[in-house]
Amino acid sequence: MTQAQRIVLASRPKGAPVPDDFRLENFDMPEPGEGELLVRTIWQSLDPYMRGRMDDVKSYAAPVPIGGTMEAGGVGEVMVSNSDRFDAGDIVVGRTGWASHAALDAHQCLKVDPDLAPISTALGVLGMPGHTAWVGLNDILRGQPDETIVVSAATGAVGSLVGQLAKRKGMRVIGVAGGAGKCAFAVENLGYDACLDHHHPDLAGELAALTPHGVDCYYENVGGKTLEAVTGRMNDHGRIAICGMIAWYSGKGLQDAMSLPKMWRAILVKKLRVQGFIVFEHMDRLAPFLAEVGPLVKSGEIHYRESVAEGLENAPVAFLRLLEGGNFGKQLVRVAE
Amino acid sequence: MTQAQRIVLASRPKGAPVPDDFRLENFDMPEPGEGELLVRTIWQSLDPYMRGRMDDVKSYAAPVPIGGTMEAGGVGEVMVSNSDRFDAGDIVVGRTGWASHAALDAHQCLKVDPDLAPISTALGVLGMPGHTAWVGLNDILRGQPDETIVVSAATGAVGSLVGQLAKRKGMRVIGVAGGAGKCAFAVENLGYDACLDHHHPDLAGELAALTPHGVDCYYENVGGKTLEAVTGRMNDHGRIAICGMIAWYSGKGLQDAMSLPKMWRAILVKKLRVQGFIVFEHMDRLAPFLAEVGPLVKSGEIHYRESVAEGLENAPVAFLRLLEGGNFGKQLVRVAE
Repeated sequence: MTQAQRIVLASRPKGAPVPDDFRLENFDMPEPGEGELLVRTIWQSLDPYMRGRMDDVKSYAAPVPIGGTMEAGGVGEVMVSNSDRFDAGDIVVGRTGWASHAALDAHQCLKVDPDLAPISTALGVLGMPGHTAWVGLNDILRGQPDETIVVSAATGAVGSLVGQLAKRKGMRVIGVAGGAGKCAFAVENLGYDACLDHHHPDLAGELAALTPHGVDCYYENVGGKTLEAVTGRMNDHGRIAICGMIAWYSGKGLQDAMSLPKMWRAILVKKLRVQGFIVFEHMDRLAPFLAEVGPLVKSGEIHYRESVAEGLENAPVAFLRLLEGGNFGKQLVRVAE
Repeated sequence: MTQAQRIVLASRPKGAPVPDDFRLENFDMPEPGEGELLVRTIWQSLDPYMRGRMDDVKSYAAPVPIGGTMEAGGVGEVMVSNSDRFDAGDIVVGRTGWASHAALDAHQCLKVDPDLAPISTALGVLGMPGHTAWVGLNDILRGQPDETIVVSAATGAVGSLVGQLAKRKGMRVIGVAGGAGKCAFAVENLGYDACLDHHHPDLAGELAALTPHGVDCYYENVGGKTLEAVTGRMNDHGRIAICGMIAWYSGKGLQDAMSLPKMWRAILVKKLRVQGFIVFEHMDRLAPFLAEVGPLVKSGEIHYRESVAEGLENAPVAFLRLLEGGNFGKQLVRVAE
């Protein structure tokens, strides 16, 4: 029987994950059942949320079991179709996991149009991260023209689209990113009005200088010091959409986090709205998102950037680098040509 | 010239206020200008928000200056009217401050109907605290039948109405209050399904037992340990309306507050909405509030309880007791008969 490859969770990380928390394995080629597809993974996604799945704590999804295949979205080619929804040769996006092949329920897969944009974008600007960006900006923050928005992880898969869409709405858009290279990219390629390096020793002071009219919307991807600086600049009736908190995912920086009473006071005195969301509960908004953003990607009006790791075996190291902010743009793994 | 009395801010408190932070003074009877009323205060309100006005920090209102009259709402009799909106002898509610007499802009005063209910209720169940309760429950939390709501400071001026209105909506209503007497009153007189003493050593465990279906809405008046316990019980898509945080007003309990990363994670994973509000921004909702709650107070279907300090000179001590939770029901000062 033909062999496939996958990466499983070898052990639960204590704090920051390490390479030994993952293990590359061969396994028997999966057999698609009735209504299923055998998919050969071409592109696999790496996203910060996967860190949460490695811990055995209550979250919006069950944790990956020890020895279980790490979860991921992937884009691949249909090798065998036991569904009348797809044909062999179709390109689909679905939950392939960190694996070279997967048997997937056809109802859980979406067809990818290779003529619209490179198929890898179905994991990025036209996939879950893009959808997340669009829902957070439009439905959660409800950003308005002439308002000021701060976007953390400004050049990431989500942030880079938030910034560009906010700019198209006529908002003043300030990014926060890690390092001069990302900040320059945010301003020059993504159209941010300004972008601040979160390593700056006086983040609050720099942010104040860049937001003379305060901050109305904060698209929160990171937590940490950035959150504290932005909170101090929030205007009355400001909104914070919590999409992620990567600075705190592995238990780092918890000691010097801003205090809850200080945050509570800001919410009360400034009458803020703080809201968490998860894109899977907004699938009714997938079609309008694609209808708006798909053509903008095709025409080149929306930019995106990818960071590619070569080969499934390199997924763990690329994932650890992503958690440290070492990626630059949407992090992908090229599993096959 | 006739003398009036007032209480001024003598010094800014460091932590919990003390009696010496206040000073009783005589002053010349105010002269009402054009469009103003001279009002003789009968009832003066004491509310937790006044603690914030004693500090020289940014808030939704300017701080009381040193030597300035402490701010308060009051109900009184119009002695002189330089406005065609009111006649001498009318009973009005307005911003009298901690004072026996005040000259008030007639446009900032509302007429009180002595036939609807005792005039003191214009400072409580039919005044700002009642309006706050109604807006928080209906417009911020948007409580629904069969949902579970937790109300902290459950027998206070605000909480006692939140609980009763929530019960009338068909919600499951759990109070949190300080001491067995208040808890018994909440259940027996206000109709709460249960009420938990916040001194209980296992607040989280007790709350879990009382909320088998979790918590959908939290009407937040206190912060502190109660907030931590409730957050652990919040359901997906739960809402927290921040109306106050009395446990943290004087810098107490800040060290052992729940951490912000933990709260942020709860908001993200449970997709919570946390919102601060201030009733003065919801004056368009005053009329519908009064239309609903006024008749219920008159008919006796809505209960309220008052805690009365006798004489302006006793306002400071009563205020300090209020901050410690020593009041039981709406705290008032009887300034005159």
